[in-house]
Amino acid sequence: MSLIWDDAFVTLSLEPHTNPWVIVRLKAPCKELSHLSVEENQRLFGYVLAVEKAMLEYFNPTKINVASFGNILPQVHWHVQARFAEDDYFPNSLWGAKVRESFVCEASIEEFVPFLRARLAH
Amino acid sequence: MSLIWDDAFVTLSLEPHTNPWVIVRLKAPCKELSHLSVEENQRLFGYVLAVEKAMLEYFNPTKINVASFGNILPQVHWHVQARFAEDDYFPNSLWGAKVRESFVCEASIEEFVPFLRARLAH
Repeated sequence: MSLIWDDAFVTLSLEPHTNPWVIVRLKAPCKELSHLSVEENQRLFGYVLAVEKAMLEYFNPTKINVASFGNILPQVHWHVQARFAEDDYFPNSLWGAKVRESFVCEASIEEFVPFLRARLAH
Repeated sequence: MSLIWDDAFVTLSLEPHTNPWVIVRLKAPCKELSHLSVEENQRLFGYVLAVEKAMLEYFNPTKINVASFGNILPQVHWHVQARFAEDDYFPNSLWGAKVRESFVCEASIEEFVPFLRARLAH
């Protein structure tokens, strides 16, 4: 898991996967989204949308998936994933059943990291 | 799937499942969350948070899970799910592997519908 971004409010990291997958973690200890203030949720969701927009532009994916579970780590964090019609799980979620093998993302996920970082810096 | 709420902006429905599971569907045709305006996303997410708060109060669950995929139906909608440490999938997502059997939610999911409806009406 490589760190993409770190500020006073959140950290963003890349989840190792065949699909582009970014995790946005809130730094303040908080279990449920509704425990945050409206402003905190908006600010946090702003990062999610920034990742989504960067993924749409960079990867031209079939769909973006976003989720906040926290069943194992009950600390607010968001998953943002770029999905492709030909990826190993599509149309299932990346937590669902694998339906094919050996998807390789056409655009470099590694090179997406500095691309996203530049977007977040603006 | 039973309808819980219907207004000019969204519909809310109950997904038939052993876990409490509500789907918040945007009425306007829109594929990705970032295609919505900031105000539309905030308004839509307000419904998600209202469902979460109602679930937390009514079911006292272990965790709330929220997700927006749209791989099969590429039209913006949110899933809001109450999770319990003893439910059939915990700690996996409800799209993941089943790890036990025959969970029965202690509080009535059916009776949650009018409870949530009353909350949304305020």
